[in-house]
Amino acid sequence: MEYLKSQINFIIELDKLKEVYRQTYVINTDRKENSAEHSWHLALMAILLNGYSNEPIDLFHVLKMLLIHDIVEIDTGDTFCYDKTEDLDRMEGERKAANRIFTLLPDNQAKEFQDLWNEFEDRITAEARFAAALDRIMPLLHNYYTQGKSWQEHGITSDQVLARNRYIDDGSKFLWHYARTLIHDAVKKQYLQTRDNRFRT
Amino acid sequence: MEYLKSQINFIIELDKLKEVYRQTYVINTDRKENSAEHSWHLALMAILLNGYSNEPIDLFHVLKMLLIHDIVEIDTGDTFCYDKTEDLDRMEGERKAANRIFTLLPDNQAKEFQDLWNEFEDRITAEARFAAALDRIMPLLHNYYTQGKSWQEHGITSDQVLARNRYIDDGSKFLWHYARTLIHDAVKKQYLQTRDNRFRT
Repeated sequence: MEYLKSQINFIIELDKLKEVYRQTYVINTDRKENSAEHSWHLALMAILLNGYSNEPIDLFHVLKMLLIHDIVEIDTGDTFCYDKTEDLDRMEGERKAANRIFTLLPDNQAKEFQDLWNEFEDRITAEARFAAALDRIMPLLHNYYTQGKSWQEHGITSDQVLARNRYIDDGSKFLWHYARTLIHDAVKKQYLQTRDNRFRT
Repeated sequence: MEYLKSQINFIIELDKLKEVYRQTYVINTDRKENSAEHSWHLALMAILLNGYSNEPIDLFHVLKMLLIHDIVEIDTGDTFCYDKTEDLDRMEGERKAANRIFTLLPDNQAKEFQDLWNEFEDRITAEARFAAALDRIMPLLHNYYTQGKSWQEHGITSDQVLARNRYIDDGSKFLWHYARTLIHDAVKKQYLQTRDNRFRT
């Protein structure tokens, strides 16, 4: 029963991710999306779009990584992807969070979760590259379908969006092509400013 | 590109599940849980507790079912599990919803999602029985860890909880044993009334 007790404690701890809010908005609402529902959305996106991965991938493995990848935010909060916080500081905070949260689990499951999270962060495997690509495409979609709400709130420009999302290409050349089409269309529709436009205003 | 366009339309449609609220509360908050974050939570629960299934199961398959199982609620809303609505009416509504929503996808993926949803509803396979057991255990945990908030709001009694959740046993005898312990403890702590108590008050 001690084993189950640790598992239940961890499951209860997970509830906190439902109160970690991201910068993107749920479409047709005034509220920001939380990291728990975002993770669900990404997992379904992986089931649907896995055929576009550059390399053959184990979808089961991708799903587990995506379900787990944001759990550390229970301690650190969400990091906005255009944030200027030093990456090393962020990584150190997330490492500590992973250690605290995953060790609530029995040892073997703590190790499994830690390994999956490390793999996602390192982006060395084909599965991690594809998972990371989806994690970048989703906020593009949310921004596009909320007429650039979060981009505008943060004064983000198209060159930043293109630079920051370039590694979608490492996971899926097909989806990076689609993402660029979306970004260019967002500029055309004035959901997203170019750097030059911003300098003029 | 038409194929991808259908997939993206479906992914955008999924965002609506983040605004479908259940009767259970997110722990330590005043807000109800939505069906998208609930599905994420269940998928992680399956990764952690699959060892307690009565029968050998394909966890990958369980994950896919759990990620998909509530999508129909985009059209029907959540059905409270103690609701007295005729099951046949509810099932008819959900069948229509499944048909509308899944057919946004390209044919082969529409069929895959429809099959997974049917399988979950039918509870004939070992995977569906285990997935359904988790779907029942989760609200027990949420009620227990919110001191019975949703049970009390709806005047639910322990005999109803025991009767309604009995089929956890079909998926996992071990977890049904745990669930009963939790229910009895909830009565002891007065999170949950017995029928007799209710009649006396």
